Amino acid sequence: MDSLPEKKAEESHRQDSADLLIFILLLTLTILTIWLFKHRRFRFLHETGLAMIYGLIVGVILRYGIHVPRDVSNVTLNCHFNASPATLLVNVSGKFYEYTLKGEISANEVNDVQDNEMLRKVTFDPEVFFNILLPPIIFHAGYSLKRRHFFRNMGSILAYAFLGTVISCFIIGLLMYGCVTLMKQVGQLGGDFFFTDCLFFGAIVSATDPVTVLAIFNELQVDVDLYALLFGESVLNDAVAVVLSSSIVAYQPEGDNSHTFEVMALLKSFGIFLGVFSGSFALGVATGIVTALISFFLRDFQLLETALFFLMSWSTFLLAEACGFTGVVAVLFCGITQAHYTYNNLSPESQDRTKQLFELLNFLAENFIFSYMGLTLFTFQNHVFNPMFIVGAFVALFIGRAANIYPLSFLLNLGRRNKIRSNFQHMMMFAGLRGAMTFALSIRDTATYARQMMFSTTLLVVFFTVWICGGGTTQMLSCQRIRYAYISSLIYTCFFFFNSVGVDSDQDNSVSSERRSTKQESAWLFRIWYNFDHNYLKPILTHSGPPLTATLPPCCGPLARFLTSPQAFENECQLKDDDSDLILRDGDISLTYGDITVSTDASGAHTSGGLAFAGASTSDDLDRELAYGDHELVMRGTRLVLPMDDSEPSFTEPHHLNIVDLSR
Amino acid sequence: MDSLPEKKAEESHRQDSADLLIFILLLTLTILTIWLFKHRRFRFLHETGLAMIYGLIVGVILRYGIHVPRDVSNVTLNCHFNASPATLLVNVSGKFYEYTLKGEISANEVNDVQDNEMLRKVTFDPEVFFNILLPPIIFHAGYSLKRRHFFRNMGSILAYAFLGTVISCFIIGLLMYGCVTLMKQVGQLGGDFFFTDCLFFGAIVSATDPVTVLAIFNELQVDVDLYALLFGESVLNDAVAVVLSSSIVAYQPEGDNSHTFEVMALLKSFGIFLGVFSGSFALGVATGIVTALISFFLRDFQLLETALFFLMSWSTFLLAEACGFTGVVAVLFCGITQAHYTYNNLSPESQDRTKQLFELLNFLAENFIFSYMGLTLFTFQNHVFNPMFIVGAFVALFIGRAANIYPLSFLLNLGRRNKIRSNFQHMMMFAGLRGAMTFALSIRDTATYARQMMFSTTLLVVFFTVWICGGGTTQMLSCQRIRYAYISSLIYTCFFFFNSVGVDSDQDNSVSSERRSTKQESAWLFRIWYNFDHNYLKPILTHSGPPLTATLPPCCGPLARFLTSPQAFENECQLKDDDSDLILRDGDISLTYGDITVSTDASGAHTSGGLAFAGASTSDDLDRELAYGDHELVMRGTRLVLPMDDSEPSFTEPHHLNIVDLSR
Repeated sequence: MDSLPEKKAEESHRQDSADLLIFILLLTLTILTIWLFKHRRFRFLHETGLAMIYGLIVGVILRYGIHVPRDVSNVTLNCHFNASPATLLVNVSGKFYEYTLKGEISANEVNDVQDNEMLRKVTFDPEVFFNILLPPIIFHAGYSLKRRHFFRNMGSILAYAFLGTVISCFIIGLLMYGCVTLMKQVGQLGGDFFFTDCLFFGAIVSATDPVTVLAIFNELQVDVDLYALLFGESVLNDAVAVVLSSSIVAYQPEGDNSHTFEVMALLKSFGIFLGVFSGSFALGVATGIVTALISFFLRDFQLLETALFFLMSWSTFLLAEACGFTGVVAVLFCGITQAHYTYNNLSPESQDRTKQLFELLNFLAENFIFSYMGLTLFTFQNHVFNPMFIVGAFVALFIGRAANIYPLSFLLNLGRRNKIRSNFQHMMMFAGLRGAMTFALSIRDTATYARQMMFSTTLLVVFFTVWICGGGTTQMLSCQRIRYAYISSLIYTCFFFFNSVGVDSDQDNSVSSERRSTKQESAWLFRIWYNFDHNYLKPILTHSGPPLTATLPPCCGPLARFLTSPQAFENECQLKDDDSDLILRDGDISLTYGDITVSTDASGAHTSGGLAFAGASTSDDLDRELAYGDHELVMRGTRLVLPMDDSEPSFTEPHHLNIVDLSR
Repeated sequence: MDSLPEKKAEESHRQDSADLLIFILLLTLTILTIWLFKHRRFRFLHETGLAMIYGLIVGVILRYGIHVPRDVSNVTLNCHFNASPATLLVNVSGKFYEYTLKGEISANEVNDVQDNEMLRKVTFDPEVFFNILLPPIIFHAGYSLKRRHFFRNMGSILAYAFLGTVISCFIIGLLMYGCVTLMKQVGQLGGDFFFTDCLFFGAIVSATDPVTVLAIFNELQVDVDLYALLFGESVLNDAVAVVLSSSIVAYQPEGDNSHTFEVMALLKSFGIFLGVFSGSFALGVATGIVTALISFFLRDFQLLETALFFLMSWSTFLLAEACGFTGVVAVLFCGITQAHYTYNNLSPESQDRTKQLFELLNFLAENFIFSYMGLTLFTFQNHVFNPMFIVGAFVALFIGRAANIYPLSFLLNLGRRNKIRSNFQHMMMFAGLRGAMTFALSIRDTATYARQMMFSTTLLVVFFTVWICGGGTTQMLSCQRIRYAYISSLIYTCFFFFNSVGVDSDQDNSVSSERRSTKQESAWLFRIWYNFDHNYLKPILTHSGPPLTATLPPCCGPLARFLTSPQAFENECQLKDDDSDLILRDGDISLTYGDITVSTDASGAHTSGGLAFAGASTSDDLDRELAYGDHELVMRGTRLVLPMDDSEPSFTEPHHLNIVDLSR
């Protein structure tokens, strides 16, 4: 038997293992350094920034340090056909070998392919990012959305994410088109660059990813509303940017010139945007609800629960991709739904397990992407660095971000009671980092000259924003005089509150005004949604919430009794809804407190309990809020997993202070 | 731009997603059914058996239910060359497309390739099993080895795993060669089948995988020594079988006739076996120790710890593969080392996290493989079912297993005090199931007629043993009169022990005799190893164990003080070694108790503490053993993860009885 191809396959496998090993060791190195940084409380460099630096170093070594002699056996053969089938059978002196299509290669790359096999080896299939690394990151973002503050600021977040991203995309697209036209005049442009390309660039760089900033916010316990606005915006605008960019790619006017303006094609693109987005949204929510319903019955077997949770969340992605929707978007909304409903049905152990599992996956995937980003700056073969384009891009990004944040904040402030102050706006402007999503979108297709130039520029944008903006977050916070000793301000306010001295009404982000404003400030959209969710969806889908018998009109009695879980009746006595609601135990109580009074307006049957609770437990409640607040901060800050029996803290002991000490 | 290949790639991606979705849904279905079975306490079918059944059903549907019209665009082209490069560039009317080598295809397959694209689609690359699915399974096995009973029975386990597997391999190989020769005489053989093929078959079916049996043992709390023997054998013989089969493949006599007997080639194969095995072993242990050393310093950041643990374990696999060793074997020994050293250095949260993570990965990978097995019975295109070969294989398997168990048990019993009784031997004979490893080895190469026949036969062997032997475990246990009410027998013995009535000396598996025999029965090999490990390795690599100052001779004082962790000195006062040792909290105490007296013989400085402990805490100790035993059984039975503050149970309360109730 001729063992030549076998040997070749074995060698290729060994090479693959070695390549992957490089990345694993890179991540290990990152972890060790980050541990050192955390130990020494360095805050100027986040783990993702560090991963990029290590990636850069390895990239330099691979590019300039190692010279692989040109391998004769890798010389490729040319073969002329009239079609490009997915599978190719090659008859080599009587033996058949199977080849699979990898993709098209531009003519000028043909020589590179033969030249630099080694650098090509460490280059992953770009689809790996979209189909393997991005989904856990996005799911984790959805699963760990601070739900209370997210829903409270929902209107603003949706405005920034949808309107803002579209504004930013078009502003950047227009500016870049101007820049490109100028470049063409000056003769700096080496290839085609159409308006759709500019718009595409606008879409991919509109996905913000302030992971670095948010990590520092967590550590420093910065204002929760600012955190919610930034995090919510970044999570949702990823989804918008993905769908937007694919709609722009789908813009295909009829006729020969495929880059002219045509109303029909524009409408079609818009239709694709709406269709794909709503389809992915519906699919993600549907799978989340199915999982919630299954886990409603499935209990007591933690391993099965966790496995089911993982498989259902993964199948959302696959289902969406198989249906032609966007898996990443579906996974995001699946994550939000899982956090909102399924999480309440899981046993405490499974709650921990699922959180920890996706936390780990998110950590690994994120650092992998960032270290790959650093590596690819040197190992990617077709960089097109154009100084004019790069400068133009940075200017356009700045203007695009400003055109997103400031006008929208102005408009939103007209409707908000809890205004987004100007220092918050500057901070949001500053926190417009670009990260994993921008990278994954730009590396997906690097076939044309325009795309290559975009990719190279995008890399620089990510490096700059992560290192400069990420590293300067602490300085920016103190420069903008945004309080980040949140705990001390809470305790301070609390002190005033108890002593009835009154609270300075300017302290928008302090406890008392927060609570007062909870009901008023949150708009009708939020209130309608919350009522519906709290009274009908939660009781049907989870073991928490009030029993349906209390929320449905009396005529639906039998149905209500049938649909309500026995546990919900127990909960009624204990008012346990708030406990089960705490995925991030961040002062959910005051919301539930605020909304029990809202919900009682609708049900009637519930009024006495709700009001009694509201009346009697004011000081208790604040105490609990403080305790929960601490819990949450510790959790996010040092990733301390609290033992589950702490979920009902003993209010008499100064328990929370002990925990705060742990986080120091 | 011609978007034809892009569209094709998109379609192929959608198809891939749909294929993977089939498996995800299969696993989901398996989980739901298994939940039902556990709920109703059905024990006749294990989750892996169920996964196979669902796989079979889906296989039938795919094979006979769905008819995909022959896709014209998939028709492949033939092209004549003189070499088969790894990368092929195809020039299709001016555009270049890149193709990568997938593998060789036998001439009779060429038509199949074109015919049944759809069935080929759900066929995974066989290397997926070896490089993605098997490593977590094997690592988990190593990480969860019941270390106490494993080390106590180490001699017997090594004998079964090494000698036994080699015996079984050669007996089966010889018998199959007889069978094949007979088939050739009768004219039943449709292709070449050499003696090396027979030996290869012997090697791959010698890897036992009694996952089904062990799950039932766990649930029924069967004798711990029997469990340790079976589990230890199955874990190690996987490693032996992998290396053995690759050594047989490497048997290449010089000259034209590559299937004759030649001493040099045999010696070379033997050398390869030794080299690859010891290399993989050394590599696995080395990475484990490096991880232990790193985690010795890295504390307090659970996420970083867990990520590091995961990455280092994965890099073992990659490193071994890149060096030409066997990754699976390296991962196994890495797992054992991690459990023995690194585990003690992890924070309690990370201990839970890592255990749970690999438990989940093991669960998913195992069920995926078994459901794929079911599927592949119908979707694999080149089955060769030969009744004579199949009958011969079953007979050979039976004889091979018998030639492994009975003679070795006889020999081992000459040296063992705690004899392996005949009913245990029958049970071990019966528990010789074949599973994931056998499947992965047989599907790896199905190019020749002989390999295809082996693969088909192997599938049947797995189905038969998992369903029949796995399903009949409970019956077999009661038929062989093997006690499985382990708890009640423990309590019973304990009752007698406290009342000083004396213990029936025939009760080999009862507590008191177990303890008495711990030191005597375990051979010199175990004692030397344990002393070295306990006195030198553990103190250097972990925070547990006695300080080196107590175990090293006085002249090495400064060095000892330098190498000992501060915590070890604290431990000395508290004698905490036993606690940190408990990965599966199965009566480790009595061992530690037994061995503290051993270690004190060597150190001297330790004697008073050790003896005081031994003298004062006899009844406490037994109590704790009972409590720990319960913990462990509950953990393994229903996978209840105990909160970590239970690791030191309050001995006064009947705490363990509460927990036992939970498991009902």
